[in-house]
Amino acid sequence: MAEYFKNIPKVQFEGTSSDNPLAFRHYNPEEMVLGKSMKEHLRLAACYWHNFCWDGADVFGAGTFNRPWLQAGDAMQRAKEKADVAFEFFSKLNIPYYSFHDVDVAPEGNSIKEYINNFAQMTDVLEAKQEETGLKLLWGTANLFSNPRYASGAASSPNPEVFTYGATQVMHAMNATKRLGGENYVLWGGREGYETLLNTDLRQEREQLGRFMNMVVEHKHKIGFKGLLLIEPKPQEPTKHQYDYDTATVYGFLKQYGLENEFKVNIEANHATLAGHSFQHEVATAISLGLFGSIDANRGDPQLGWDTDQFPNSVEELSLVIYEILKAGGFTSGGFNFDTKLRRQSSDPQDMFIAHIGGMDHLAMGLKKAAQMIENDFLGQVVSKRYAGWNGELGKGIQGGEFTLESLANLCVDKDLQPQHVSGQQELLENKVNNVLYG
Amino acid sequence: MAEYFKNIPKVQFEGTSSDNPLAFRHYNPEEMVLGKSMKEHLRLAACYWHNFCWDGADVFGAGTFNRPWLQAGDAMQRAKEKADVAFEFFSKLNIPYYSFHDVDVAPEGNSIKEYINNFAQMTDVLEAKQEETGLKLLWGTANLFSNPRYASGAASSPNPEVFTYGATQVMHAMNATKRLGGENYVLWGGREGYETLLNTDLRQEREQLGRFMNMVVEHKHKIGFKGLLLIEPKPQEPTKHQYDYDTATVYGFLKQYGLENEFKVNIEANHATLAGHSFQHEVATAISLGLFGSIDANRGDPQLGWDTDQFPNSVEELSLVIYEILKAGGFTSGGFNFDTKLRRQSSDPQDMFIAHIGGMDHLAMGLKKAAQMIENDFLGQVVSKRYAGWNGELGKGIQGGEFTLESLANLCVDKDLQPQHVSGQQELLENKVNNVLYG
Amino acid sequence: MAEYFKNIPKVQFEGTSSDNPLAFRHYNPEEMVLGKSMKEHLRLAACYWHNFCWDGADVFGAGTFNRPWLQAGDAMQRAKEKADVAFEFFSKLNIPYYSFHDVDVAPEGNSIKEYINNFAQMTDVLEAKQEETGLKLLWGTANLFSNPRYASGAASSPNPEVFTYGATQVMHAMNATKRLGGENYVLWGGREGYETLLNTDLRQEREQLGRFMNMVVEHKHKIGFKGLLLIEPKPQEPTKHQYDYDTATVYGFLKQYGLENEFKVNIEANHATLAGHSFQHEVATAISLGLFGSIDANRGDPQLGWDTDQFPNSVEELSLVIYEILKAGGFTSGGFNFDTKLRRQSSDPQDMFIAHIGGMDHLAMGLKKAAQMIENDFLGQVVSKRYAGWNGELGKGIQGGEFTLESLANLCVDKDLQPQHVSGQQELLENKVNNVLYG
Amino acid sequence: MAEYFKNIPKVQFEGTSSDNPLAFRHYNPEEMVLGKSMKEHLRLAACYWHNFCWDGADVFGAGTFNRPWLQAGDAMQRAKEKADVAFEFFSKLNIPYYSFHDVDVAPEGNSIKEYINNFAQMTDVLEAKQEETGLKLLWGTANLFSNPRYASGAASSPNPEVFTYGATQVMHAMNATKRLGGENYVLWGGREGYETLLNTDLRQEREQLGRFMNMVVEHKHKIGFKGLLLIEPKPQEPTKHQYDYDTATVYGFLKQYGLENEFKVNIEANHATLAGHSFQHEVATAISLGLFGSIDANRGDPQLGWDTDQFPNSVEELSLVIYEILKAGGFTSGGFNFDTKLRRQSSDPQDMFIAHIGGMDHLAMGLKKAAQMIENDFLGQVVSKRYAGWNGELGKGIQGGEFTLESLANLCVDKDLQPQHVSGQQELLENKVNNVLYG
Ligand SMILES: [Co+2]
Ligand SMILES: [Co+2]
Ligand SMILES: [Co+2]
Ligand SMILES: [Co+2]
Ligand SMILES: [Co+2]
Ligand SMILES: [Co+2]
Ligand SMILES: [Co+2]
Ligand SMILES: [Co+2]
Repeated sequence: MAEYFKNIPKVQFEGTSSDNPLAFRHYNPEEMVLGKSMKEHLRLAACYWHNFCWDGADVFGAGTFNRPWLQAGDAMQRAKEKADVAFEFFSKLNIPYYSFHDVDVAPEGNSIKEYINNFAQMTDVLEAKQEETGLKLLWGTANLFSNPRYASGAASSPNPEVFTYGATQVMHAMNATKRLGGENYVLWGGREGYETLLNTDLRQEREQLGRFMNMVVEHKHKIGFKGLLLIEPKPQEPTKHQYDYDTATVYGFLKQYGLENEFKVNIEANHATLAGHSFQHEVATAISLGLFGSIDANRGDPQLGWDTDQFPNSVEELSLVIYEILKAGGFTSGGFNFDTKLRRQSSDPQDMFIAHIGGMDHLAMGLKKAAQMIENDFLGQVVSKRYAGWNGELGKGIQGGEFTLESLANLCVDKDLQPQHVSGQQELLENKVNNVLYG
Repeated sequence: MAEYFKNIPKVQFEGTSSDNPLAFRHYNPEEMVLGKSMKEHLRLAACYWHNFCWDGADVFGAGTFNRPWLQAGDAMQRAKEKADVAFEFFSKLNIPYYSFHDVDVAPEGNSIKEYINNFAQMTDVLEAKQEETGLKLLWGTANLFSNPRYASGAASSPNPEVFTYGATQVMHAMNATKRLGGENYVLWGGREGYETLLNTDLRQEREQLGRFMNMVVEHKHKIGFKGLLLIEPKPQEPTKHQYDYDTATVYGFLKQYGLENEFKVNIEANHATLAGHSFQHEVATAISLGLFGSIDANRGDPQLGWDTDQFPNSVEELSLVIYEILKAGGFTSGGFNFDTKLRRQSSDPQDMFIAHIGGMDHLAMGLKKAAQMIENDFLGQVVSKRYAGWNGELGKGIQGGEFTLESLANLCVDKDLQPQHVSGQQELLENKVNNVLYG
Repeated sequence: MAEYFKNIPKVQFEGTSSDNPLAFRHYNPEEMVLGKSMKEHLRLAACYWHNFCWDGADVFGAGTFNRPWLQAGDAMQRAKEKADVAFEFFSKLNIPYYSFHDVDVAPEGNSIKEYINNFAQMTDVLEAKQEETGLKLLWGTANLFSNPRYASGAASSPNPEVFTYGATQVMHAMNATKRLGGENYVLWGGREGYETLLNTDLRQEREQLGRFMNMVVEHKHKIGFKGLLLIEPKPQEPTKHQYDYDTATVYGFLKQYGLENEFKVNIEANHATLAGHSFQHEVATAISLGLFGSIDANRGDPQLGWDTDQFPNSVEELSLVIYEILKAGGFTSGGFNFDTKLRRQSSDPQDMFIAHIGGMDHLAMGLKKAAQMIENDFLGQVVSKRYAGWNGELGKGIQGGEFTLESLANLCVDKDLQPQHVSGQQELLENKVNNVLYG
Repeated sequence: MAEYFKNIPKVQFEGTSSDNPLAFRHYNPEEMVLGKSMKEHLRLAACYWHNFCWDGADVFGAGTFNRPWLQAGDAMQRAKEKADVAFEFFSKLNIPYYSFHDVDVAPEGNSIKEYINNFAQMTDVLEAKQEETGLKLLWGTANLFSNPRYASGAASSPNPEVFTYGATQVMHAMNATKRLGGENYVLWGGREGYETLLNTDLRQEREQLGRFMNMVVEHKHKIGFKGLLLIEPKPQEPTKHQYDYDTATVYGFLKQYGLENEFKVNIEANHATLAGHSFQHEVATAISLGLFGSIDANRGDPQLGWDTDQFPNSVEELSLVIYEILKAGGFTSGGFNFDTKLRRQSSDPQDMFIAHIGGMDHLAMGLKKAAQMIENDFLGQVVSKRYAGWNGELGKGIQGGEFTLESLANLCVDKDLQPQHVSGQQELLENKVNNVLYG
């Protein structure tokens, strides 16, 4: 396919004095922050699906985007045109990584053999594209939710042949991810859940999922894939209830099947809020459980009850999220993947650039603010001081297992303890965070 | 205290032809259902706190109930009057069990010694009352959330002395529960959570909770308490986020600290819905994880975002919940505890009776409907048939660990599998459930 | 098109002893309830769109239904096949009414002329079908939300040509509705709202809507359409905020443009709950404002934040809704329209029948229960007694405008008023309602 | 009462180089912004109730604040001490306005006469305090929701004597407000709603409210009060449903009773979000309906379903709200009132200062950012251009009433209109707003 974004040159950093909407004002890839380049800190990725597989349709209306590569035609030919446009976009956007599902990049075909064959051909195409452009793969994944065969789930399907079909896709997607140098492999179980408890055996479906994930781990080691395996939690949508509800739920699942050292989570901001949590909560929880892996950077709408996958634009929120990540040592192989889609009304091709540039700039702003909070870590100091008692004699004794309820109760009486509440200073801390954000 | 509910005789079963609002129309304690009496199936309990410790106040207004035992006066004297009224109520209501927090029944006093002393005296009072009335204790618990010392949590407090104080209360509440023949012991961590992540160390607080729960288990075994230990999940309120968010979250916590065989959950309907789940979901999830223990039977308002603790009145919902419980073998030592409060406008003393009678009747209706669904278990049959493939060769092979991703993928290709979706028949099953409910 | 539902005979009433899932157990069209037949009370309608224009796709996956008339082919030919199947379905379902959007029944074509021509041809087809089957049209409407031209709204579009195009569709849809004997005309403004306030002029868009609705009224009178004009409120989805948020909001809009006597509302259960209201609230509010018109009978999922349009199955909820409607005198030209769709997993053609039969039966049950509540109107009696003071001297004086704040304050002091709260008896009333529902 | 905040001097502006948590960094009262001082733009007020009438209690626990003036004692004496502390606080905080409910400042007493007498005495006290300190009253109001007599509402009570009692309070509160130079009078109907539709007559209660509000208007004119009358919308809490649900609902109510020119709204951020709207939405809606009056500046927690009344700290949100207000010409007699309460854990007296200082600074930041957006009004330009067609021939013709549906349809066909969607550029605008916020 010929150049699609004809009037759009490669996006450059121009700084805050620029008012060019097609330039970065904050994202300066090589700029050093806390001893590491922005590019290395953020590890930004654009996705294939929302950008190149979606035409602006929603439940109540047809597509508004008119992408030529989504028109009818020979499927493999269209897939190649799509790859041309995708890599033109990624390159011009100056983003270092991308991410994809198997069926984003290759036609499913009418049989498992066609699937395998098409995907293999397109893996060659992607490999050549990566080489040509220098782009890297943040993660690959398999789509086990769009085809009607997965309407009742893939790993958790009542039909073991559906499980088998899904397993086949995952194996090929893992293999392709490895071959393309992908740095992680993601599993999002969009249909692994239920529509109604009336026809569902929760225990059976959980066992199936446990078995599936164990097979994935085994395959990873067999092929020597070195990246992280990531589960992406989501509470509901498309189904009524999904088993990977949130990070805490995934943790229990992993513990049950002995997988807690084999998987991390890929946290999506909009999935966090649909689950009734703040984005920061999910990140902090994952870190506290040793499960933090990667981020799908987007946002929901606070008034809407579905996954709008909007571009992240709250620097207030992003700064605290990045602060948590920096405190925990930063990403290893994860990164910020834009699992984001344009608003249906944003129908200009250049809206794709503008939206991503905004997202990248907002993350860059967040990084700079978070770095300031790390350098003068007033939050860390408050926390240390607040829990200081747990480094004292009593605290250490309790945590060291020196007390029973009874001996502790005796101590309480003997010392006539009358502990008093101490202010949590929430408003002070909120003010101090804003001092960093706004000067 | 003299008789308080003067004009209210002991509540009797009068059947559906009665229109006496102070009689049972469905709850007939000795009526046999599936070979067991209603009383034994439902194991109903009324609670101390909402009925006898609350005067109808809410955040925006003063109490509307004017309960005499909540007026100013000598604290121990008032506590004894409260016990008189409580047991008058329980007895007249004809409910077999009750439940309490330590500080519901005894004044906290101004020191740990006073607490212990008051509580011991009131345990004597309760013991005498139980003997006199035949009432039994479904469960006891300690209130580690109302006193200002617990504003930042008890087990998860930043101050180990607060932890110690809480441990002391729990030990005494466990001991009293054992002495009173209590059949379970409940832990609800109303302040075990955070108001803001800015001042919180999630990992530290979780470790503290893990230690606390281990001490509770150890004490249980030491004193030979034979009942269940129950954790009651709640997602938020009073704090922004509570660590026992829902059953799945509690499961992960228990697995982390090796406690999954020591605790069950006490599921509250209103806490389920606040967590974004249906009541039935929480019960079914607990059963599927081997964690089902007991129920706080109430309901929320679908349009309100806080814990209204209303009396359960949806027979549609209760029937399915009881169906799940019956399928799983029924309660062991758990039961249906009315963690329910009157609406603030329901200010007549007899509203207490009417509300509980309704709740008891609705559970009895639900039991009868659920028993019908067990007798003609069309749901069970549909589920069996739906998952039949997992008893076939392929299904058993997968679950038995006979396949790797690769060998399964080979099978998929070799057999050229093309599995098709089969209808989930949700609407059919919903209709059939309604046929049971409404004839 | 040949018979599509080959093995399905016309659905008959078989009573509660039947366990035929393809028979009515409660809906007995000619059965008399409070002096009117069930059929006349309920005025049931099935819709064209969810049943015949949707193939089971959702945002995350392709269609699961494989409806032959939705495959590629000559658009008018397919439209005629669709009409064949639709009327086969309506007739076999034994439902007296149907409802449609212009573009459900006729292809949009590539120009306004093609639209008009196609729609005119299909109106002929529908007219013939109605005559042949005896089916009647509950209401017609125009789809001003699916075509990309309406992405920013129709009447509230920033582009007056889009307004014009929408007006043209509405005129033709009104004319067709009149010609087909439609008993109402509905306006649902799915895109009349905003995605972001940043690009929106609220006052301008409201003025446009006001003008549009006035033109609709004027056209109604000009063509002598005798049915009701109905606005269907919805708070959000597809857009972030829709102007017809709920009944109270529509009332304010109508008052502003002097339209309160020209429009009623078409209340959808799932839209009510998305707006933060109970279904009963919206119905009761519409009645209290003189705006009650018709109902889109469906339900949402209490845990999901989007419009699931499930089949209504809560007899508890429906009984109270129908009680409100009966108290207000019943429908005039409105009715219960099933704006309902199958779950995506319900992929058998017969699921369409089963789901509607269930919905019809649940409404029939609700009607019978509501009739009982009308016959022994304990709710009405409680309400009368509760407000009795407003028929007394003081109450009448206040309402009659006899007092100023000052004279009323003087009266308060002079009489030293000390009014006391009286119990609202909510739990008693809830119990009594359940006594009706469950015996 | 002696000085309470002993170690806290009058709060001063110290600029962004200060890290004194008890100084303003942005709020510089006399600094000019767009030709007016910050003080005049923002018109900041602190409230009496959360600061001086609340001790840190919540539904699950006792107060944590230990305010001496809330201890037991002679009620009038305590009220005077409370006034001392309140004015010490207001003065030291350097805030120009305050706000109160009648029963915040004066004890209710045991009869209407005592109420009147107490309130009169305390009005004298307040008048002296205002004179002494220079503080001004932004608005007064009457509390018709806390006393048990109002459990079923005040104006909408089933008992006309309760209506009368409420009317008496309102008259005295209006009179006191006028005497104290109050610039507005607020009505918040916290109990004007229902708990259950089962016992409620919606139409009757609405009529009562309509009458009540007319009496208020009449009294305003009679006493020559020149400020605004403000209704404060809230959707629910404490009751299940409140009649002043949101701005759009209030508009319909005012139109029904011919009051739309007599009332404006007092919009509270947390009430907006509880109603399912953004804060900006409610402000923009009020402006578009000509109802904008004043603001209760606070925020909710996005994960919690009740009114947390936290201090506003999102400059992202506040900037857009202030932009709307500035575009509409700014406040007339309204202002930003801190209807905000400390978190229960923020138990230091100085937390009161810190929280308000943060709120004041965040509003000052928002003002400065909004002023930038006014100076370079890219949003306004985009909006003008987007709707430009409505200033063209067709647009003016439609709005001017020159077309019927039919003549417009004819035009559509004659011109063969094929309007195309144009990008809404949401992401571009969001990026541009962030460029202002973060440079
Ligand atoms: Co994602
Ligand atoms: Co998403
Ligand atoms: Co509970
Ligand atoms: Co509760
Ligand atoms: Co509808
Ligand atoms: Co709908
Ligand atoms: Co307020
Ligand atoms: Co509030």
